[in-house]
Amino acid sequence: MGKVITAASMSLDGYIAGPDESGFDRLFAWYGNGDQVVETAHPELTWHMTKASAELLRRDIAALGAFVVGRRLFDLTGGWGGSHPFDRPVVVVSHSVPDGWPRPDAPFTFVSDIGAAVARARELAGGRDVGVNGGTIARQCLAAGLLDEIWVALVPLLLGGGTPFFDHVANAPVDLDGPFEIVPDQGVTHLRYRVTARP
Amino acid sequence: MGKVITAASMSLDGYIAGPDESGFDRLFAWYGNGDQVVETAHPELTWHMTKASAELLRRDIAALGAFVVGRRLFDLTGGWGGSHPFDRPVVVVSHSVPDGWPRPDAPFTFVSDIGAAVARARELAGGRDVGVNGGTIARQCLAAGLLDEIWVALVPLLLGGGTPFFDHVANAPVDLDGPFEIVPDQGVTHLRYRVTARP
Repeated sequence: MGKVITAASMSLDGYIAGPDESGFDRLFAWYGNGDQVVETAHPELTWHMTKASAELLRRDIAALGAFVVGRRLFDLTGGWGGSHPFDRPVVVVSHSVPDGWPRPDAPFTFVSDIGAAVARARELAGGRDVGVNGGTIARQCLAAGLLDEIWVALVPLLLGGGTPFFDHVANAPVDLDGPFEIVPDQGVTHLRYRVTARP
Repeated sequence: MGKVITAASMSLDGYIAGPDESGFDRLFAWYGNGDQVVETAHPELTWHMTKASAELLRRDIAALGAFVVGRRLFDLTGGWGGSHPFDRPVVVVSHSVPDGWPRPDAPFTFVSDIGAAVARARELAGGRDVGVNGGTIARQCLAAGLLDEIWVALVPLLLGGGTPFFDHVANAPVDLDGPFEIVPDQGVTHLRYRVTARP
């Protein structure tokens, strides 16, 4: 069975967005600071990163079989127009099904319960890993003992405020194991941790 | 001329203390999880850490020539009984000189202005580095363009709240350069950054 992971670009002071949704240019600068092309399922969304990050991201894309996302991320992205950039099925955690959904041409499922959402994504992933985003959903998975790994792309940056990756962690303090992998690169340090202290 | 650096043990979610001053056992576990002895000027304060951390800390102790500390840290430690654990002169940033100080037997100076404090510490350091602690003083140095490097001992831990290392950063966002050094170890990852964006 695959793992359940969450991943984010995070500033050294722990934020995945700066004040008033600022800072994304800096947090995601490493997606565009190199000459290695990483393509997504969306032709207009093509990244140019340095070698180490590109190799890691290509490996991750291959390893991930499905996603669980929150309703906020679904709404923000407009459901990615019906197709996740990594071309994978998506389970949306939502108390209501949005107008016009589900669509026969889009592999999106709507589930109200986080546990059921992860279980459904596991089935859809066919043995591959399940990615959970954003922070609120990741936190719910952590609290429910469903999260296996946390992948942080640590950006050399102080945002000074904004949206923390890990806010209102239930059962804190939570001990992690690792990092079991460290990939240094230009403008980012990839750190991967295992969740050891299941509630 | 030496550098001005600040250093702290920080949880992955950015805290140097948990809620209600908790979490120190976890944040400083790496000071006691190995068999390499690191001695300080205080016989009762001897650390037992793993090899990589011990080598790094011994190098740091040798490189640091003086400290600038805030009044809160001075009061919390009782002025370390008149002798800093690393046996170095200390400049205390304080609007008032505490009762009984300065003492002829203790190399502690009291200065009300952060800029003057760093300048005095530089003189005392004799070309070696100056360490500034805690977070409030480090932040003041950062805001005043006096900070050269940030050393983070990143601990695999989510504290979920408490005292952020970098709170209320003036002139945020602040871009950093690095990490120029990464030292992985048991229970801690040492990451060292340069401050590039001087205000």
